Amino acid sequence: MRPALALRPSAVSRYVPCPRRVCHRCLSQQPNRSIAELLRWKPAQRVDHVVVNGFVRSVRSMKAHNFVSLGDGSSISPLQALVQTDQADGLTVGAAVRLTGSWVSSPGASQSHELHVSKVEVLGPSDAKTFPIQKKYQTPEYLRTMPHLRPRTPFNAVLLRLRSEVISSLTQFFAARSFTQTHPPIITSSDCEGAGEVFTVTPASDVAGPADKDCAQDSFFRSRKYLTVSTQLHLEALAQAVGNVWALSPVFRAEKSDTSRHLSEFYMLEAEMSFVDELGPVMGLAEDMLRSLATNLSGSSTFQDLLSRSRQSGSDLLPADEVARRWEGLMRHDWPRITYSDAIALLQQKSKLFEHKPVWGAGLQSEHEKYLAQHVGGGEKPVFVTHYPRDIKAFYMRASQTASPGGAGTSNPTVDCFDLLVPEFCEIAGGSMREHRLENLLDAMKQQGILASSSDGSGLDWYTDLRRWGCPPHGGFGLGFDRLLSYLSGVQTIRDVVSFPRWLGRCDC
Amino acid sequence: MRPALALRPSAVSRYVPCPRRVCHRCLSQQPNRSIAELLRWKPAQRVDHVVVNGFVRSVRSMKAHNFVSLGDGSSISPLQALVQTDQADGLTVGAAVRLTGSWVSSPGASQSHELHVSKVEVLGPSDAKTFPIQKKYQTPEYLRTMPHLRPRTPFNAVLLRLRSEVISSLTQFFAARSFTQTHPPIITSSDCEGAGEVFTVTPASDVAGPADKDCAQDSFFRSRKYLTVSTQLHLEALAQAVGNVWALSPVFRAEKSDTSRHLSEFYMLEAEMSFVDELGPVMGLAEDMLRSLATNLSGSSTFQDLLSRSRQSGSDLLPADEVARRWEGLMRHDWPRITYSDAIALLQQKSKLFEHKPVWGAGLQSEHEKYLAQHVGGGEKPVFVTHYPRDIKAFYMRASQTASPGGAGTSNPTVDCFDLLVPEFCEIAGGSMREHRLENLLDAMKQQGILASSSDGSGLDWYTDLRRWGCPPHGGFGLGFDRLLSYLSGVQTIRDVVSFPRWLGRCDC
Repeated sequence: MRPALALRPSAVSRYVPCPRRVCHRCLSQQPNRSIAELLRWKPAQRVDHVVVNGFVRSVRSMKAHNFVSLGDGSSISPLQALVQTDQADGLTVGAAVRLTGSWVSSPGASQSHELHVSKVEVLGPSDAKTFPIQKKYQTPEYLRTMPHLRPRTPFNAVLLRLRSEVISSLTQFFAARSFTQTHPPIITSSDCEGAGEVFTVTPASDVAGPADKDCAQDSFFRSRKYLTVSTQLHLEALAQAVGNVWALSPVFRAEKSDTSRHLSEFYMLEAEMSFVDELGPVMGLAEDMLRSLATNLSGSSTFQDLLSRSRQSGSDLLPADEVARRWEGLMRHDWPRITYSDAIALLQQKSKLFEHKPVWGAGLQSEHEKYLAQHVGGGEKPVFVTHYPRDIKAFYMRASQTASPGGAGTSNPTVDCFDLLVPEFCEIAGGSMREHRLENLLDAMKQQGILASSSDGSGLDWYTDLRRWGCPPHGGFGLGFDRLLSYLSGVQTIRDVVSFPRWLGRCDC
Repeated sequence: MRPALALRPSAVSRYVPCPRRVCHRCLSQQPNRSIAELLRWKPAQRVDHVVVNGFVRSVRSMKAHNFVSLGDGSSISPLQALVQTDQADGLTVGAAVRLTGSWVSSPGASQSHELHVSKVEVLGPSDAKTFPIQKKYQTPEYLRTMPHLRPRTPFNAVLLRLRSEVISSLTQFFAARSFTQTHPPIITSSDCEGAGEVFTVTPASDVAGPADKDCAQDSFFRSRKYLTVSTQLHLEALAQAVGNVWALSPVFRAEKSDTSRHLSEFYMLEAEMSFVDELGPVMGLAEDMLRSLATNLSGSSTFQDLLSRSRQSGSDLLPADEVARRWEGLMRHDWPRITYSDAIALLQQKSKLFEHKPVWGAGLQSEHEKYLAQHVGGGEKPVFVTHYPRDIKAFYMRASQTASPGGAGTSNPTVDCFDLLVPEFCEIAGGSMREHRLENLLDAMKQQGILASSSDGSGLDWYTDLRRWGCPPHGGFGLGFDRLLSYLSGVQTIRDVVSFPRWLGRCDC
């Protein structure tokens, strides 16, 4: 047997990304130099043989030459290229081109350098007359009719980069804390959490069969299966294996609500911590995660691009200063925590302000949440509201051991849970301790009419099983990932931060 | 308006993970000290007040005390704890416990230190008699009947950590190269790539309706929708926005094959590069990615755990030295590339070895791929086989400009594609240049009977649209992520590297 020492790590050259992103050596080695990299590169001397790929955003014709704006999605600012008129054939709006030339300091004020082009290659021509993406303002509703082309607008490219950088930052955050990233299943056996608003899954070959098959669509998996509405229950099983786990997974709701905040398919970030006794560390994790995310990305060029676009924006985008304030709020420490009962008491003092009277036992209305975010968090910091009434929360949440401080005693039981509210936007995440004691869980399921077992495998026997053999106290939270991107970008409609949004009646491409 | 400078990155403290993972300060600050961290910690002096959480793996009773093995999934080796007999109540196999004690150097040889326990807290009791997970060897088939408990076996925890570290390493790899990570849609409009083996998606409320609704299940999205079989087509749209993109996404196949290599739901890693003219850089990316992955992770404790378990394993796991050889192969440079035509010629010289005669125009059989991996890659390096016949490949692949060197001329056209073969395991990834010219694409679709447009939105109009306005040459590849984990871990059946596997007839939990 070969000894494991054959793989001494010191003997192997490690992959190290180049720390210099815009040095000569990097640029000469990269076949695709991004426009963002070129724009940061300000050599004192003229540099020849510079090659750049991109899409023509606009062309301004002069007598002997044309000014061509080139974009490649890496930067919201285009690159300015000077092309002799006799070389400008095919440089139409939208065209995919490769330009070779000299990188020289620019006499104009808008850009320190520009490309003096010596060679033009049109790699993908474009009929500018029919190209649906225009440089002028186009409404979000119009752009939504062509999700396959919409990413080509400069601001949509910023949103794509934001998504990517947020994923990368979160992956680092959780890896540094030894959380295990997992892939919980998408097709699941239970629909208990979806309250009927779930999708079922059927092989097309069954659907296409004769009509008298009586929709016999449950043959592939033997019984009816669903698209997951949350990965939490499966994450709990995995947390009992490796302690702390997280997932960034698509989830699905067949909701018939047609609002700016709902999609039928969206990504959810869920984390689960084992061996935590109280809600505090779970809220701490959510707070640390969002703070480190905002802190890390606020130094990125993507963040600057986000703000620069907001400034020029039409009415569909939040102004730049409000986006900046959102990020600053996330970067602050010590986010306030208030119990639901205290929150109700506070709201009742101001009940004249509200259309819906605040009542203990009812859910918080959007106007209530806005008031709390404004007055408890100072309109700046996010706010945790904790210990909601048991009757309005999910069966798996752990009953609070003592009546909530401001609550109405044991006759009004609460659960160890939280909602995280952010200014203006309201709920962005929610979490709880999970009931880890078998008897208590079975009681709660009985009360809510949820099957603990069934003959066709659709019951939650497996979930209650987790409590039979060594289930430590544990808790976690879920965060709507696309909603987070909506909050961070100031894009008001979640349909505009998702590349190919799916909702009631809409599933293009 | 608030200036963007309000967010100067230098003014904000950045999140920096502690570089010292096992120092005193870290350990005292962490509420959950992992067993892996404790086992690496070898203080010269006895340290008191050490707290550790975990699950009891076994108990060995002596007269005055018990030796308790504790696991928490962070390490395949358990922690050894010494507990006085009068404190050992509830320390049954499977129980979730918190032990407090002194960390002292151990007289035994198996472990440098052990925990002398002063306080025992049983956080989640376990009825050891009924606990289905046993320390003795249990067959993969048996463990597969309880996916919710299977992760608790020490080796399954290693597989969960491997998955997590592979995701994290790939995320860093692509971020360092400025690839944008994307979330292509899961519910899609087209089933063209699935060859009928797709799942359809229906709201449960429609399915539950009266039978005479004639399976009217297409009401939610207006027409029939499917679970994606590949994210490639959507990735191409996104690549035209930001250049180079990738995704790690669940995909679905309603295949009725019941093999050790197929699942109905699995993760696929797909990458797409814009502005590449030839296949070379695409293969280079796949090679770099796998090499950097193996190189980075070969220094991890997870890799050592993988090898140590393999050595003790039953027949269901590849021996440790063969796993090590797989990793070493991935770390080597300059993987050989051979055209399909040359490969066929090579195989024909040895045709007596094969059950299936190698014929130009037919797909490579598994026995052929094994021979190529053994003799072209020396049984060590992965091998790229390129330029397959057009008739056995997908419609979107770009036609080769010249006949393949060893091919049969223009009457036997090939496409610019590759399969990546690894020793023993065979195909692990596949990629191609995509046809970026509108007319050529439409011709290929016509030949294969694929609708370029349809009234119900199920056609590929949107995909052909991508070629109308500035489509540069581009290419990419896809890699079965769970198959990769199967290869890296030496777990022979893909059902055993996925926590909750779904295949024909099986979808537990």
